[in-house]
Amino acid sequence: MIKPYLQRVATALLLFLLAASAQAQTAAPKATWIWYPGDYEIWLGNQMQNRRTERGTFFPVFWRMDSHYVLIDFHKDFDLAQPEEVELRAEGQYNVKLDGKPLGAPTRLTVPAGKHRINIKVYNQATPPAVFVRGKTIASDASWLVTYEDKEWIDASGKTSDQSGTTWLQAGAWNFDAPESLPSAFKLPTEARRAARVERTPQGMVVDFGRETFGYIKLHGLKGKGQVAVYFGESKEEALATETCETLEFLAVDQPQKGDTVTSLSKAFRYVNIRPEAGVSLDSVSLLYEYAPVAERGKFRCSDDQLNKIWDVAAYTMHLNTREFFIDGIKRDRWVWSGDAYQSYLMNYYLYFDTPTVNRTQFALRGKDPVTSHINTIMDYSFYWFISVYDAYQYTGDKAQVQQLYPRMQSLMDYCLGRRNKDGLMEGLAGDWVFIDWADGLSKKGEVSFEQLLLCRSLESMALCANLVGDQAGAQKYQQLATDLKAKIFATYWNAGKGALVHSRGNGQPTDNVTRYANMFAIFFDYLSPAQEQQVKKSVLLNPQVPKITTPYMRFYELEALCAMGEQPYVLKEMKSYWGGMLNEGATSFWEEYDPTKKGTEHLAMYGRPFGKSLCHAWGASPIYLLGKYYLGVKPLTPGYATYEIVPNLGGLQWMEGTVPTPQGDITVAASPKQLKVKGASGTGTLRFKSKSKPSCKGGKIVSKGSGEYELTLEKGREYVVSYQAVSK
Amino acid sequence: MIKPYLQRVATALLLFLLAASAQAQTAAPKATWIWYPGDYEIWLGNQMQNRRTERGTFFPVFWRMDSHYVLIDFHKDFDLAQPEEVELRAEGQYNVKLDGKPLGAPTRLTVPAGKHRINIKVYNQATPPAVFVRGKTIASDASWLVTYEDKEWIDASGKTSDQSGTTWLQAGAWNFDAPESLPSAFKLPTEARRAARVERTPQGMVVDFGRETFGYIKLHGLKGKGQVAVYFGESKEEALATETCETLEFLAVDQPQKGDTVTSLSKAFRYVNIRPEAGVSLDSVSLLYEYAPVAERGKFRCSDDQLNKIWDVAAYTMHLNTREFFIDGIKRDRWVWSGDAYQSYLMNYYLYFDTPTVNRTQFALRGKDPVTSHINTIMDYSFYWFISVYDAYQYTGDKAQVQQLYPRMQSLMDYCLGRRNKDGLMEGLAGDWVFIDWADGLSKKGEVSFEQLLLCRSLESMALCANLVGDQAGAQKYQQLATDLKAKIFATYWNAGKGALVHSRGNGQPTDNVTRYANMFAIFFDYLSPAQEQQVKKSVLLNPQVPKITTPYMRFYELEALCAMGEQPYVLKEMKSYWGGMLNEGATSFWEEYDPTKKGTEHLAMYGRPFGKSLCHAWGASPIYLLGKYYLGVKPLTPGYATYEIVPNLGGLQWMEGTVPTPQGDITVAASPKQLKVKGASGTGTLRFKSKSKPSCKGGKIVSKGSGEYELTLEKGREYVVSYQAVSK
Repeated sequence: MIKPYLQRVATALLLFLLAASAQAQTAAPKATWIWYPGDYEIWLGNQMQNRRTERGTFFPVFWRMDSHYVLIDFHKDFDLAQPEEVELRAEGQYNVKLDGKPLGAPTRLTVPAGKHRINIKVYNQATPPAVFVRGKTIASDASWLVTYEDKEWIDASGKTSDQSGTTWLQAGAWNFDAPESLPSAFKLPTEARRAARVERTPQGMVVDFGRETFGYIKLHGLKGKGQVAVYFGESKEEALATETCETLEFLAVDQPQKGDTVTSLSKAFRYVNIRPEAGVSLDSVSLLYEYAPVAERGKFRCSDDQLNKIWDVAAYTMHLNTREFFIDGIKRDRWVWSGDAYQSYLMNYYLYFDTPTVNRTQFALRGKDPVTSHINTIMDYSFYWFISVYDAYQYTGDKAQVQQLYPRMQSLMDYCLGRRNKDGLMEGLAGDWVFIDWADGLSKKGEVSFEQLLLCRSLESMALCANLVGDQAGAQKYQQLATDLKAKIFATYWNAGKGALVHSRGNGQPTDNVTRYANMFAIFFDYLSPAQEQQVKKSVLLNPQVPKITTPYMRFYELEALCAMGEQPYVLKEMKSYWGGMLNEGATSFWEEYDPTKKGTEHLAMYGRPFGKSLCHAWGASPIYLLGKYYLGVKPLTPGYATYEIVPNLGGLQWMEGTVPTPQGDITVAASPKQLKVKGASGTGTLRFKSKSKPSCKGGKIVSKGSGEYELTLEKGREYVVSYQAVSK
Repeated sequence: MIKPYLQRVATALLLFLLAASAQAQTAAPKATWIWYPGDYEIWLGNQMQNRRTERGTFFPVFWRMDSHYVLIDFHKDFDLAQPEEVELRAEGQYNVKLDGKPLGAPTRLTVPAGKHRINIKVYNQATPPAVFVRGKTIASDASWLVTYEDKEWIDASGKTSDQSGTTWLQAGAWNFDAPESLPSAFKLPTEARRAARVERTPQGMVVDFGRETFGYIKLHGLKGKGQVAVYFGESKEEALATETCETLEFLAVDQPQKGDTVTSLSKAFRYVNIRPEAGVSLDSVSLLYEYAPVAERGKFRCSDDQLNKIWDVAAYTMHLNTREFFIDGIKRDRWVWSGDAYQSYLMNYYLYFDTPTVNRTQFALRGKDPVTSHINTIMDYSFYWFISVYDAYQYTGDKAQVQQLYPRMQSLMDYCLGRRNKDGLMEGLAGDWVFIDWADGLSKKGEVSFEQLLLCRSLESMALCANLVGDQAGAQKYQQLATDLKAKIFATYWNAGKGALVHSRGNGQPTDNVTRYANMFAIFFDYLSPAQEQQVKKSVLLNPQVPKITTPYMRFYELEALCAMGEQPYVLKEMKSYWGGMLNEGATSFWEEYDPTKKGTEHLAMYGRPFGKSLCHAWGASPIYLLGKYYLGVKPLTPGYATYEIVPNLGGLQWMEGTVPTPQGDITVAASPKQLKVKGASGTGTLRFKSKSKPSCKGGKIVSKGSGEYELTLEKGREYVVSYQAVSK
């Protein structure tokens, strides 16, 4: 398992530089490696997820891992003014045809002037078939068409079939823009980092990297023969607990002369406990920090230092969990979970706006047909996936992704609809995990209202996507199903006396158990009447009798529901108390679960294991989303931010300022009770605000909407400064 | 592409010997490598089929190539009297659990006495996940259970899910019975063979191996720097036609000292034309003959020397085309085609009775869900596949194979039924290849009667298999569909005036075109009344006005239909004329197509290419089947030859004798007009014959059935000699 790590890093760097220089030197169209859409994503997902270990043991997923199609045909038609020489590369065994004529497997090819078709057919069992083609005007990119069954047979006379039964999709691509940048060789970059503190112990040393981090441990000046044990800990307690820490690695050393060596797998930790056997010595330890090279375009600063710290730690938590894909947590699972990823997409829209990572994650989660299980085996996680696809379109405007995914949306929805019971409701069948949240004593039995709500929203998302791809019949079908289901939900679960949706129904009878889940989703899904909304706020969200949520995962939605009802001052206090509570416990990244009533090392335990809990979990980073969407108040109104709104809400802060990334540039917002300063790089925005006095804006036309509400239309590229007088809540 | 071939061969041999000795040394239960059923078969099929080249160019299939599941859980429960140490191997990254407790990836494991469960979970992207486990009583074999989704999640308390939603299948296996015998390293064995004749030419040499053969070319005493071109020919004309021969290979040579080298891919040929560039020399050429190590258990000898020669060449043709799978032809496609394979299965039952090759071929053809195309894209080929599954059960009695395949039978049948038109008939839709046969001017338009007949038989096979696996509802459904379709076929296509089924229907109107296809299948499917049968015989089969069949493929069924009606003397003459005709043309193996009206090199052309025709095609070997089933007259009456019949028919021969293999031993038959001598190793046989005089058999009780017909029950292991007086037809 000990690979020549440095060489790998150097090679990756070299390939990167070569790629960059190739890009710079040529005026050619941007050629990039292409593949069957979703296939590279599924393959890379397998690579990444299979890096999970538990105390050194390989620990794979428990759902079906799909694989790429091993034989792919790529083609595109060109109309050339002049003959053109192209270079060709493929990952796999391949052949090339020009206008149907086989040409073997050339690495260079001259295409004559006029109309021509290039076909490349590639076989690769181990890694996804991929091609790279580059000429003066010809370039492999997402406009090429691909299929896994070209159905091109020949009859006895040698005539080729018409291929009318073949489905062609647009090729998948990412950023492998040089012939040497093989998609199968992809590695995240690393950076050398020094330890913050080193404590020598009788058995070796305990190294503190100062905060939660991720990467490979490099042992310097290693010498002797024997084993070095490396125990990782997100806490110092964990690193010291050699019998119960979650991850570890044993390195076999046989070095007569001093040399450096690197652990085989990247890991999550703050502390490492290094224990060389007698006869083995080392000088020091450093880190090769491994990270996704995504840019933090989103920013947030305000008058509250604790909130600034929360935002920073949330952003760092999010960065650590943004890797090849959006993962759940960096220590333990390192898997792609749909419910966790859904929140990461939303946070991403306010931090990186890195659409490729969203698209990759959606493909990897969905896998391939036939559907034999819910995504991650979890019912709710199938639903989040549907919702995420339309959401993504709303933020990114990337219609191609919806088109590529739509057939897989249909088959997954068929699977879900096929698992409804005789009353048309979802109930956990054999093999279905009804997750909802980690919460003691939470019932998953019967027909849980929360799941019906998610199905209803999924059907609405299906209808929207169906319309988008021109499937009118589908759109109508899904919308009707959604409408019927919503009516059934309220007929079944709404308890007027309690002013809430009840948790579930069993044996045909609604329970009188009230939980937060369905109620808070009903708010931001906009399923409640204004009167119901107020009832729910009082009888559920602000009611301490209803069991508290102890995961940042569901706090995300709880606080979103409150923000959607304008409770920003309350939510601000909750954020400071909950996320601030973790900081007070010494957190350097946010956790999988936080129960303020627990003490000391109780915070580290979960799943019946003393260090089972993840101390760096993506779903811990939700302040990023809440602050961007509900305080800076920025969200798209039409897909891809063609139009958008800014509704700043200080929530009691003296001032705040920040940046929200969009597909075509940033939106900046600065707010105080007296001044609003906003600017959007593209699209048309609407600034909405309340003012006690008549507001003014030089060069902007403020429209009064009555009741002290005002709107200002924002043209792209212009900064607007509004003087106003904030209405405190 | 030039690999150290000899080393590979030597390694394969060594592994084989190790396997054999490991087997011999231990009294342990037979442990064997196991995998997810069908997965190794699909993977090996990809490996084999992608060896097709056309003039050096990689030439892959045009249908979807599936792949193995990359992550598999294997388990079995054991109840041990004593603790037991087992050795463990896996192809892939793996972990082991004993009673749910993770143990890492040990290569040895001690299982305590009592009831225990061993789980092994394996990930492998490039080759199928596989395991080998061997102890005193514990052994990996087909009784282990496997799944691609164990759905074993844990809740927040660490409790494991109940896995009740997981489908477990029995493991797949073959004969990799030693830990060193890695399934992924499988290679067919080879044997060194010398050339028959060598002709030196100004450019090099033309080598004749005496008859059609297959393997690698070894160049001896190669020296110099440059290229050696190797042109292969099934005919001498082809080997000499350097511009149009179908296969070739260029070897780059850079050897200052004399050395041997071997071509990179095994090929089909009789002749090779070796052309070294100037500066390269070689001493001689030999062959590494590559073959499937299957035993020829079936035998046939008779009083007609030409027929003996036909049987021998047919057996050789069959052997060459029996490789990792039953393939179509060894020169060109080397692919697995369902229609071709169906005939190979039938021939196999009379030659090798090698059930693993049948099972492998069925799995490889079917691939995985979802079904997006007919098998090989050909409508008829989907149908042959269904029919082959029940047929195989009838011959082999291997119920496990039906059980493993049944879910894939259901989904393929759903696909087929979903493609019926509004009248419930099959018609070629976009992407469907309606093949039937290679025949000039044969119409594939509209609703072809032949396809409906095959669907009807497929539905009957589905009903039988459904019953077998306990799916009563399915059995009833499929039988009803078959009954309805059969009635529709006769209502639609039977033309009483012509005494035949017509070829097709177009625009709702049956044509008056009569072809042989549907009519001959209707006979041996037993779909015709005795009166209709006689009409069809006269108006179609023996009617020279109906277009003649020019492929051995459809001659197979034509002659089978005639044999089923007792026309053995006629069929004998046809065999001598048709297959004898190929021998007269110099054939050393039987061809893809043979039209006796063609002359000279016309016989070599097909698909518009001068050497496009395959001169060694599996479907050319049908005399094997006809002679075994309809002359020796042996066939099972109940699955796996539990009961069987022998109905010898000399068809005009003075004598014949032969052997028919069965699952539990051989059946031997010797017949002359005066004596019948039969013996069956197992099961209960019935010998049926006609005699002009009262027959006698020492130790056997002959029962008269009236009209000169007699029966004798055959107990296993006993030889019966019957004296009788044959009735000449």
